[in-house]
Amino acid sequence: MTELFTDEYFMREALKEARKALDIGEVPVGAVVVCKNKIIARAHNQTEKLTDATAHAEMLAMTAAANYLGSKYLNECTLYVTLEPCVMCAGALQWVQLQRLVYGATDPQRGYRLVKSPVLHPRTEVVEGINMEEASELIHSFFRRLRDKD
Amino acid sequence: MTELFTDEYFMREALKEARKALDIGEVPVGAVVVCKNKIIARAHNQTEKLTDATAHAEMLAMTAAANYLGSKYLNECTLYVTLEPCVMCAGALQWVQLQRLVYGATDPQRGYRLVKSPVLHPRTEVVEGINMEEASELIHSFFRRLRDKD
Repeated sequence: MTELFTDEYFMREALKEARKALDIGEVPVGAVVVCKNKIIARAHNQTEKLTDATAHAEMLAMTAAANYLGSKYLNECTLYVTLEPCVMCAGALQWVQLQRLVYGATDPQRGYRLVKSPVLHPRTEVVEGINMEEASELIHSFFRRLRDKD
Repeated sequence: MTELFTDEYFMREALKEARKALDIGEVPVGAVVVCKNKIIARAHNQTEKLTDATAHAEMLAMTAAANYLGSKYLNECTLYVTLEPCVMCAGALQWVQLQRLVYGATDPQRGYRLVKSPVLHPRTEVVEGINMEEASELIHSFFRRLRDKD
């Protein structure tokens, strides 16, 4: 029997969220939080809609997941996000003591790995590059279109 | 004529917020956002009350200030906060392009300066140590009391 709940499966759910962001003109980043193979929170970037530069998909998903669990800590959860988290989001992932981080595209401009110190929680396991091509293409085509408009 | 709107004046307002956190059993950190000598947002740490590890005083104050201004950017604002911001909050201050950061006590455990890369926006001016003694005492006495309870 093939495994249903793979990293690719949940990343496709995060990609669905990213496309929702794209549809409303936001930078297309999506995230889902998974606990015991169940999606307990899903969110997409809403910085424009909420006029809030901190309203990243990961931040919204983390807050929703904590609310669902009634716990500040997501130490039994995996966050799937289509783009490598920024320093703010990585700092937040440290506070929630995330168990596992899975992301699609890397972000060489604003990704947390630019920072030359560990910013995630020391126990957080990291997997990168799941559905990377689709995740990269989504974000690159968005910025390509923005540039073409100018 | 003595200057009314000094850094010490606004930091005292941030300290009032920190005391509100203390009164409800939260880690006592307070913040105000000031734009053209006017306080446009004030907040205190609410991680316990909101069951949200990301609900730091700075995050709540930034979101409220952006909402007040109707702008994602706080590039004409000063954030006064009683404790050195953590990496998450510093990352957020970068996204909002904060003009000026003033903090009281340093945080050698979780402060953003632990990170060996610049995390604030390159144009953000930083002032530390305003009302430092009071700010330090507030946070230290909180943790002292917590330890004494054990």
